[in-house]
Amino acid sequence: MGSEINLKNIVSRKLLELQAYSTKSYDHSIKLDAMEMPNDSIVIEGSSILNALKDLELNRYPDPNFRALRKKLLIAKNLNLPKFDVIVGNGSDELIQLLCLLTANEGKGKLLTPSPTFSVYKILAQIHGLSSFEFNLESGTFHLDTSRFIEEILKVDPSLIFIANPNNPTGNRLISRDIEKVCEACKGLVILDEAYYKFSGRSYIDMLQDLNNLLIMQTMSKIGFAGIRLGMLFGNKKVIDLLNKIRLPFNVNAISQFVGLEILNSEALIDEKISSIIKERAVLIEQLSKIEGIKVYPSEANFILVDFQNYNAELIFSQLLESGVLVKSVSGQHQLLKGCLRITVGSEAENREFIRIVTRIIPKSHS
Amino acid sequence: MGSEINLKNIVSRKLLELQAYSTKSYDHSIKLDAMEMPNDSIVIEGSSILNALKDLELNRYPDPNFRALRKKLLIAKNLNLPKFDVIVGNGSDELIQLLCLLTANEGKGKLLTPSPTFSVYKILAQIHGLSSFEFNLESGTFHLDTSRFIEEILKVDPSLIFIANPNNPTGNRLISRDIEKVCEACKGLVILDEAYYKFSGRSYIDMLQDLNNLLIMQTMSKIGFAGIRLGMLFGNKKVIDLLNKIRLPFNVNAISQFVGLEILNSEALIDEKISSIIKERAVLIEQLSKIEGIKVYPSEANFILVDFQNYNAELIFSQLLESGVLVKSVSGQHQLLKGCLRITVGSEAENREFIRIVTRIIPKSHS
Repeated sequence: MGSEINLKNIVSRKLLELQAYSTKSYDHSIKLDAMEMPNDSIVIEGSSILNALKDLELNRYPDPNFRALRKKLLIAKNLNLPKFDVIVGNGSDELIQLLCLLTANEGKGKLLTPSPTFSVYKILAQIHGLSSFEFNLESGTFHLDTSRFIEEILKVDPSLIFIANPNNPTGNRLISRDIEKVCEACKGLVILDEAYYKFSGRSYIDMLQDLNNLLIMQTMSKIGFAGIRLGMLFGNKKVIDLLNKIRLPFNVNAISQFVGLEILNSEALIDEKISSIIKERAVLIEQLSKIEGIKVYPSEANFILVDFQNYNAELIFSQLLESGVLVKSVSGQHQLLKGCLRITVGSEAENREFIRIVTRIIPKSHS
Repeated sequence: MGSEINLKNIVSRKLLELQAYSTKSYDHSIKLDAMEMPNDSIVIEGSSILNALKDLELNRYPDPNFRALRKKLLIAKNLNLPKFDVIVGNGSDELIQLLCLLTANEGKGKLLTPSPTFSVYKILAQIHGLSSFEFNLESGTFHLDTSRFIEEILKVDPSLIFIANPNNPTGNRLISRDIEKVCEACKGLVILDEAYYKFSGRSYIDMLQDLNNLLIMQTMSKIGFAGIRLGMLFGNKKVIDLLNKIRLPFNVNAISQFVGLEILNSEALIDEKISSIIKERAVLIEQLSKIEGIKVYPSEANFILVDFQNYNAELIFSQLLESGVLVKSVSGQHQLLKGCLRITVGSEAENREFIRIVTRIIPKSHS
């Protein structure tokens, strides 16, 4: 009984046909697939959250305006109201969602991204009805040709540009001094996604002072706290005000707000862990580079893109998994990524084990 | 430098002109404004979360499919895959958002709700581009005239109907045996929002078995856990699958997933707390009813709607606040609510204090 639902009558064909973000799960003992910090870098123990949790009164709604976190973030980034503000999201994902929702403009909105890049930009743009335009990075280097990119901006006239800097899954920084030119060419919003900036040592947040259509996105996920879902978007208060208007009233739960504050109080400790990942990254790159017949891309992030040129990447992915090591195959994501796997930098022990296994799998190598 | 942003070029006028959900903050010592459980009903102490938090590995992404929580919820509600499923959200708010996004259908989507009701339905519908239709409840009783409502359904042909049952802010159940007729008349989705069902003792989740366009929404917010943001939507797996496809990949953080499981393990304890609120509600209603010149509506929720007929409700709101008691003024929300305040049932001590203060403010009363 009840009406038979004919979903075609109430759901647009675009949404019915949409390909979702895929999150397959695999059995593994070493997890190097998702740019998480390794377990040995956990800096905030449950015990230090305990006392605060007692005070948190989980029966109460969280602060809808995350005031304590907001204040501390603005101070940490040396940004001041009323010109600048920050919005906190349920991960950067929610901020991307809100930016798409804001600029969808009844089907007239346009997203432009370098490509390949983080797939969620395009998926959320599609869900919210923006047209999506991709600008290919240089084959073989994944550099962004900014003068051609600017021509594309003038042609497409995007409402939204996302530039992941450093980029995922390529690991390189896409842009530095040309940010100004890109912002000048774009009549919409330019979002620099600095999810991995701590691993490159370079943030461009200071450029907010001069560029009023620039926004800087950062996250707690890559510095050790993917589990709490906390992303931040800094920029022009006029834009942040609009995003606050369209977000859920209580979008960041009480515990994540609290842990976020603890993270900001633990910056020195976190930076130490970041340094050790950067050192491990250098070791991994050096060891991988000794393997013949594969190409190791330079990285300013906490992962390394490897092109298994002379080998079958999917086979190597499976062989690694059989040995308990989960990495990410990005081979099917983009033509320029064909044959590529993305390896997150793990703990020292995990990285050694990974190298031991990969050099066993590729017997011709001299490691 | 950078392009001057002309937000009118990239943001629709509807969004620019939108009125946001308002969350003003007031100083207070007794908080009876937001349907939270009182502090003396906190059943999960930080200490019981401690051990689990240690194991939670906050450096890892949460389970994108909240499998443990999903499994336990389906068992608790006696629902089985593959016909039924449940989606968990960052509060019910996110589920409302996803339902609006799903049925927006490029501007053709239509929302129908009884009115007055929970304001977030309409706000999120507007943000996502649905047209919004309201059907007034009966003046003086806030009953839903279901036969006229069904006529309205046939006329409007909504893609989405939300019925809060019990309703906020009126406190009464709007519907029971006519759910079937409503679902039969509606070609879209009918969502029964059972946020307050524990305080009425009546859930209609069993009706999912026969009505394939019905969905049941519940939340952890009103039973003691507003701070963790956890809402659940049960129903037809085909619909839940689509909602999962358009949600953020990691929409429920690791800690909230864990606490959600703990809540399901603590049901007897929570039901005990609910019983004490129901008893306190009866006492409050009895005491308020002794005050002359005001009208106390019956309630099946954890709050009481009071029409301060002979008095100025805004003035009483302010006088309560001066005495440290924060209640909710709903007087401006709807014509039928003119002169009304909504009072959350607090702890025994809070309720006594509230009665003491309100009878002092309204000196003509004989309490």
